[in-house]
Amino acid sequence: MGYYPTSLTGLIENFSKLPGIGFKTAERLAMHVLKMPYNEAAYFSESIMDVKKKIGFCSECFSLSDNEICSICANPLRHNSILCVTEQPADMIVIEKAGAFKGLYHILCGVLSPMDGVTPSDIKIKELVARIDKDKITEVIIATNTNAEGESTADYIANILKSKNIKISRIASGIPVGGELKYIDQVTLKRAMEARYAV
Amino acid sequence: MGYYPTSLTGLIENFSKLPGIGFKTAERLAMHVLKMPYNEAAYFSESIMDVKKKIGFCSECFSLSDNEICSICANPLRHNSILCVTEQPADMIVIEKAGAFKGLYHILCGVLSPMDGVTPSDIKIKELVARIDKDKITEVIIATNTNAEGESTADYIANILKSKNIKISRIASGIPVGGELKYIDQVTLKRAMEARYAV
Repeated sequence: MGYYPTSLTGLIENFSKLPGIGFKTAERLAMHVLKMPYNEAAYFSESIMDVKKKIGFCSECFSLSDNEICSICANPLRHNSILCVTEQPADMIVIEKAGAFKGLYHILCGVLSPMDGVTPSDIKIKELVARIDKDKITEVIIATNTNAEGESTADYIANILKSKNIKISRIASGIPVGGELKYIDQVTLKRAMEARYAV
Repeated sequence: MGYYPTSLTGLIENFSKLPGIGFKTAERLAMHVLKMPYNEAAYFSESIMDVKKKIGFCSECFSLSDNEICSICANPLRHNSILCVTEQPADMIVIEKAGAFKGLYHILCGVLSPMDGVTPSDIKIKELVARIDKDKITEVIIATNTNAEGESTADYIANILKSKNIKISRIASGIPVGGELKYIDQVTLKRAMEARYAV
């Protein structure tokens, strides 16, 4: 490390702390920053602090937002009586990218996991229940992950919402589109069989 | 891009401008920054501007430096009568890492390339000549690259320095250590034959 000027060593160190960036790549990225136009580097530097200073959680759905209310919750064109429940903001973004949903979201900010000490009060379940009453929600789609924690969280939420007069569904499991049967695990295949549909 | 809050979009954009970083990786890095402790992100942000504000060229050898004189030129333990001439600061760093040289460096900050309009006055050749006289240099090792531009720059410098009463050498070409003969190009092999040594 001593081969570089101190400031360059600092930048290399910072780059190599990022996930998937090794020392050699960090050296290359730091040299690239060195050669960047000054204002481009200033924009890069500022955007890091911007993210840290501005991003918080939407007070309605708990997704990431620069503002009190996120752009999806604030959008009057979204169907505001349907909620899609996900574990994390990243899950919401994947669904948005697929363009498959036009309602609003509710981010749990976690998943029930007794092993890690995460109980229903640690994630945004009571906020979900309050929102269903307040905003006259008629349908809830539970889109937690299909692993053990995600499934049990989905069951827990479905159970809690049973008493309300709303539609509750879980996104379908099955063979991924373009997937080959020989690479699919048995549990998925069993579910795909059970959920077969007439053609 | 519209799926993310504006500030996060900005950071993703900045990451994806870096060499070898695609959009997916940029998304992952930006999410990592979002989860970083505040002061770690502040250090990262500052280190980018530090590099832009502090790094300049050493006034002696033209390597990268935070100060007027770089740490190698300022080190009294280096042999100050031997110069190693390289094209770029990065070449100097590779030689330093190998630990094979204890003298001082002179960075040309370029290579002669008539095709790209780079002439002797565009690179630090007259500074090299002046330094040889001023600092009583007794030996110059030319460590430019072994491609066409590097070779002709080496020839040019050797020619200019011929009149001075100093040792001039060129780092050896040959088979890389650990290399296999069948993967070596013909020109390198020919040189390695010519430069054979008795054992």
